[in-house]
Amino acid sequence: MRKVAVVAGGVSTWGVRSATWGELVQEAGNALFSSARSLGAKDVDSLFVGAAQPERFAFQSHVAPMTAELLGLHPWKVLRRNELACASGQAAIQDAYAAIASGLSDVAVVLGVEKMNIPSMAEATTSMANVLDRAWDGVQGGTAPPFFAMAAQRHMHEYGTTAEQMALVSVKNHKFANTNPKSQFYSKTFTKEKILSSPMVSPPLRLGDCSSMTDGSGAVLLVSEEKARTYTDTPVWISATAQYTDFHNLANMPSLSSWTGLKKAASELYQKGGIDPTDIDFAEVHDCFTISEIIEYEELGFCKKGQGGKFIQEGQSDLGGKVTVNPRGGLLGCGHPLGATGIGQAVEVLEQFQSKVPAARHVKDAEVALTHNLSGSANVHTLTLYRREN
Amino acid sequence: MRKVAVVAGGVSTWGVRSATWGELVQEAGNALFSSARSLGAKDVDSLFVGAAQPERFAFQSHVAPMTAELLGLHPWKVLRRNELACASGQAAIQDAYAAIASGLSDVAVVLGVEKMNIPSMAEATTSMANVLDRAWDGVQGGTAPPFFAMAAQRHMHEYGTTAEQMALVSVKNHKFANTNPKSQFYSKTFTKEKILSSPMVSPPLRLGDCSSMTDGSGAVLLVSEEKARTYTDTPVWISATAQYTDFHNLANMPSLSSWTGLKKAASELYQKGGIDPTDIDFAEVHDCFTISEIIEYEELGFCKKGQGGKFIQEGQSDLGGKVTVNPRGGLLGCGHPLGATGIGQAVEVLEQFQSKVPAARHVKDAEVALTHNLSGSANVHTLTLYRREN
Repeated sequence: MRKVAVVAGGVSTWGVRSATWGELVQEAGNALFSSARSLGAKDVDSLFVGAAQPERFAFQSHVAPMTAELLGLHPWKVLRRNELACASGQAAIQDAYAAIASGLSDVAVVLGVEKMNIPSMAEATTSMANVLDRAWDGVQGGTAPPFFAMAAQRHMHEYGTTAEQMALVSVKNHKFANTNPKSQFYSKTFTKEKILSSPMVSPPLRLGDCSSMTDGSGAVLLVSEEKARTYTDTPVWISATAQYTDFHNLANMPSLSSWTGLKKAASELYQKGGIDPTDIDFAEVHDCFTISEIIEYEELGFCKKGQGGKFIQEGQSDLGGKVTVNPRGGLLGCGHPLGATGIGQAVEVLEQFQSKVPAARHVKDAEVALTHNLSGSANVHTLTLYRREN
Repeated sequence: MRKVAVVAGGVSTWGVRSATWGELVQEAGNALFSSARSLGAKDVDSLFVGAAQPERFAFQSHVAPMTAELLGLHPWKVLRRNELACASGQAAIQDAYAAIASGLSDVAVVLGVEKMNIPSMAEATTSMANVLDRAWDGVQGGTAPPFFAMAAQRHMHEYGTTAEQMALVSVKNHKFANTNPKSQFYSKTFTKEKILSSPMVSPPLRLGDCSSMTDGSGAVLLVSEEKARTYTDTPVWISATAQYTDFHNLANMPSLSSWTGLKKAASELYQKGGIDPTDIDFAEVHDCFTISEIIEYEELGFCKKGQGGKFIQEGQSDLGGKVTVNPRGGLLGCGHPLGATGIGQAVEVLEQFQSKVPAARHVKDAEVALTHNLSGSANVHTLTLYRREN
C-alpha cells in the first residue's frame, strides 16, 4: 500500500450564489490550481468528483467527464463520480486514496460540488428527502430535521442534554466561521440568545441548530509519495480511512441517541492509525445539526457517552480545549453544499497543518486530525485520519 | 498491489419488468449469494453499487446504504456508489478492484442496478438526455440516438460501411441472446431483413440498431487472493484496468468516427496486461448501437481502422472468428440497464471461463478476455482485462 499525500486545495465562496453548477466547478478548479506549486492540467492523471444530487438540483448526470471538460482535463488513469449523500466529498477523497495507494493513479484531483439553491426550492427540499428510503421513512415524513430532532429528544431524555448546550455548538461554530471569509455566514453574529429564540424547525431543533442549503465547491490534490514534494514543501498524509454502514431505515435502528456505527468506524480508524482519541488535535465533524456534534464527541471518544453536552459547555471542543472541533466553522457556519463539505474539511486540515489559517482558529503544533461525515439517518459514517509529519 | 479475483456472480432477468428498484436489487443479491460457495452476509466487508440515475428513475438517492439494507449487509470497510452513466457498473467493479488491491477491503460485493421502465417514459427518456451537457449538446437535441447516428453517417462516408453490415452486428448479438434466458430479447428472432425494415430512429440507425430501455440488475463478488479459493475452485483474475476521458461536448470532439479515447485506453490496457489485441479470446463491448461495436473492433485493434464493417461481414467477431465479441448477447440482445450492464459483462466473463455457458456461445479454452463500456458521447472509455489462470 503506497503512501498518499494531500498537497494542495481550495474552495469557492459558499452561500446562496448566483453561480451555475458549472461555474462552481470552475471556481473550485481555480482555487486548487492557484494553491499548488507548478500544477498543470497535463499532470492530472485522475479525477474524482463528489456530488450528491446534480441529477435533481441541476438536471445533469454523468458529471465526472463534464467536470473534466470544465477544468480542461483529460484524465488518462481513473475517472469516478461518487454519490454518498452528505458524505459524497469525503467518499471521493477515499476513492482517490485507494486508487493512489494501489498504484492505479499518481496525481489525482478530487472535486466536490453542489448547487442547492435553485429556482424551485420545493424541488430542492423534496429532493433532499430522497436521501432516506422514500417508500418507508420518506412517506412517513422521516426527513433530516425530524430525524435529528428525535435523536435530540432522546439524548435530552437519556442524558439531560439541554437546548442551551446545543446552542453553544452553534455559537462556537459560527464564531469560527467568522474567521473564514468563504463561509456562508461570515460576518454574521450568532449569540446563544439569538439561537434559542430563532424559529422552531422540528422540536427541539430551532433554525440556529440547523445547517443550511448551500451552493459551494472545493477541490484537493492527492498524490503518491514520490510526487508529493513536486507540489508543496509541506504535504499532509492520509494515515487511515474507515467507514461503517449501520441500519438504514428508522424502524431497524437500535438507538437514536447512540450512533454505534460511528463508534465502530472510529475504533477501526484509531486502530489503523495506531492512536487513541486523545491523540487527535483537531477534528472536522459533521454538525448538520447541533445535536450531531454533541453525539459525535461521545462516539469519537472525545468524552464519555452522555457527556457531550457538558463537553461543549466546558469549552473542551473550543480552541484551547481537549480537542478543537470544527475550527473551519463546520456545516453550521460554513453551510453544507453536500458534495463539497468533505472537501472543505480536507482543505481545512491542509491549511491548519500548513499554518495558513488565521490565528483565531489555528490549532498550533497540531500533528493529528480527523474528518468525519455522516450520511442518511446517521447510519453511514465516513472517517479519514490525517498526519502532518511523514 | 494485491491480486484481485472475481469468484461469483449472477444477474436478474433483464427486460421490461414489474419489479421495483428494490426488488431488482434483491434479485441480484439472490443470484450472487446462490452462486458463491459458502458466502454469508457477514463475510462481506465492502459494498460497491453501480447505478446511473436512481435519482430520476426511482426518485431515490443515497442508494448504497439502501442496497446494503436490502441485502442484509453491514459493510464495515468501504461503501461506495458510482455513477458514470452507461459505465456505472464497470466503474463500480474498478472501484472495488482498487480497494482490494490497496488492502482496504478483502471481500466486496459489487452490485449494479437500473429501473428504466417507469410510468412516465417521457420522464425516463428526458432523464437519459442529461447524460450529455444539457446547457450545450442537450439543448440542441444532441442525445444518444442522433449522436451515434452522426458517428454512423461519418463512418459510412469515410470507410464505406453499410447499413447491412451494421444490421449484422444486431443479428449476431440477438443470436447469442437467444442462448441466454435472462436477456431482454430471449426467444425473439432478428433477421437482417427484419432489422433493415424496422422503424427509422435517427438515420441511418433503425430500431434494430439500438439497444433498449431495460430493467435489470447483477452482482459479482471480488476478493483478495488469500480469499479466492474460499468461494470457488475457479477464480477469474482481474489483470488490468484502463480508462480515458476525451472531450465531452460535441463541438470539441476532433472526430465522430475515430474514438481516440478508446484507442488510448486499449493501448494502456494491453501494455499493463503484457498482451496485444490478438491475445484477446473474447470481448464484451458496448454495443449501445450497432455502429458502436463496429468502431470498437477498430479502436480495440481487432482489425484495422475502417475495416470494422468487413470484420463483422466476414464473421470474425462471431464464435470461431478471430475474437468472439459479445457472446452474452450484448446490449442489443440483453438490454441495457445502465448500472447493471458492466456487471452483466463481468458475469459473462466469469461463466465463460468457468464453462457455465451453453455451447452455442462458449468460447472454449479462452484465457484472456476484456470488457468495455463507453459513456456519454463515446468520450469516456472504461476497460477491464481478465485472465482465467492465476
